Amino acid sequence: MKTTKTFVFFFIIFFLGSSAYPAIKRQHYPCKNLVLYFHDVIYNGKNAANATSAIVGAPQWGNLTILADQFHFGNIAVFDDPITLDNNFHSVPVGRAQGMYIYDTKNTFTAWLGFTFVLNSAQHKGTINFIGADPIMVKSRDISVVGGTGDFFMHRGIATVMTDSYEGDVYFRLRVDIKFYECW
Amino acid sequence: MKTTKTFVFFFIIFFLGSSAYPAIKRQHYPCKNLVLYFHDVIYNGKNAANATSAIVGAPQWGNLTILADQFHFGNIAVFDDPITLDNNFHSVPVGRAQGMYIYDTKNTFTAWLGFTFVLNSAQHKGTINFIGADPIMVKSRDISVVGGTGDFFMHRGIATVMTDSYEGDVYFRLRVDIKFYECW
Amino acid sequence: MKTTKTFVFFFIIFFLGSSAYPAIKRQHYPCKNLVLYFHDVIYNGKNAANATSAIVGAPQWGNLTILADQFHFGNIAVFDDPITLDNNFHSVPVGRAQGMYIYDTKNTFTAWLGFTFVLNSAQHKGTINFIGADPIMVKSRDISVVGGTGDFFMHRGIATVMTDSYEGDVYFRLRVDIKFYECW
Repeated sequence: MKTTKTFVFFFIIFFLGSSAYPAIKRQHYPCKNLVLYFHDVIYNGKNAANATSAIVGAPQWGNLTILADQFHFGNIAVFDDPITLDNNFHSVPVGRAQGMYIYDTKNTFTAWLGFTFVLNSAQHKGTINFIGADPIMVKSRDISVVGGTGDFFMHRGIATVMTDSYEGDVYFRLRVDIKFYECW
Repeated sequence: MKTTKTFVFFFIIFFLGSSAYPAIKRQHYPCKNLVLYFHDVIYNGKNAANATSAIVGAPQWGNLTILADQFHFGNIAVFDDPITLDNNFHSVPVGRAQGMYIYDTKNTFTAWLGFTFVLNSAQHKGTINFIGADPIMVKSRDISVVGGTGDFFMHRGIATVMTDSYEGDVYFRLRVDIKFYECW
Repeated sequence: MKTTKTFVFFFIIFFLGSSAYPAIKRQHYPCKNLVLYFHDVIYNGKNAANATSAIVGAPQWGNLTILADQFHFGNIAVFDDPITLDNNFHSVPVGRAQGMYIYDTKNTFTAWLGFTFVLNSAQHKGTINFIGADPIMVKSRDISVVGGTGDFFMHRGIATVMTDSYEGDVYFRLRVDIKFYECW
């Protein structure tokens, strides 16, 4: 009997403790995973039919058809890129990556990302919202999944972004490894 | 006695289980609701006095007083729009919706939203931060509430956005049905 | 024995209750604190070597080297600013603040912020992502910490921003008091 009481007491302490301090250490174990690719073809004045993105902001020394000097610092691009399950540009898209990237360093390639995956396939319907810094020259970089809707209602997590391929300043493909740690 | 021990044991499993996996299924029940409207009058070169937003980014084929061809793809607008409790543009504002929207598709009207509700009324003081994709032609679309301050300290949730009215390319009114699922 | 059973029962109610309603009132007690400064030198056509930010979007009545009339409404600036531990511009940076700010009111100075702290020092490695409204003329204003990576894996919180110093339209320094309420 005494043991039980001690047990229960220990329990109260433990439980109240974790309830009162939401910042308890939680396990870093994803509740859901998704690996997706998206493909960006930037408008350069000649590829209107195929372009999926366009420069819409540039610094004083830049323009809207050629990415600016100094590692494209100051360029804002708006995009509506196809998302695929594999790295093939011609695969059937499962959704669209929509938003913007901003080149934001003068002495190397980095970008700031704000975008949404709008998924609409047999497997997934809903949106995933991303924000974060993208140090492009680093092999794998982490950004935040700050929210989601539909199948991804209230989800949060981390997305690991990798440049899977690129062709000069015209095309790049990103692999996005999404790990949700809050799934609801 | 045995029963009690089993009970307590079950408890430990249950509690540790939920602690170890933060991604347990949570109830989709809002802890707070807000329905608000905001009103956007975009600058078109002639309405400087009334305009609440302005085009500040455009693709190479666009300009800063007329929304661009191809469903306004590439236009960035900055806004400071009045928020009202009902759908009347002339109601006393309870705050301002501030941020940007980006038209981001070439073959239909969609936007990417990044903005904040800055509320300052007898009922609510604080800010609510939103991010998400807005497929404008869909009747009701969900974006993420990614954070808040003041009365909305650390809140998260979903905002359902509906176009309540629009007049050509000059005016639109959005109804925003905010459902908080994390309230602190 | 009866007492124990009652206890356990009380426990189940209490525990299930808090599990079922994620919106229980949580304590507003930071699990981690950081105070950092960042320094912004905006490009004005003459300071290319020192500038850490540049105007990349402007309304129709503006341009890309001078902040626009009407409280800079409509200006978008992209920045890559050094972060320091104290208020000295010449201190060794512990990271970079990267992203954008948007002036978004016509009758006072306010901005909308979307940016990331990329920290890389002996003490901190990782990123912190911020979103929010910045009513610049208010002494201290709160924005949301919507996510983090590395040392700040999945963190959320509030950042209190204060203008620590400014020199006309060329330089400003912000003090950012970051309080994390979710630490993982």
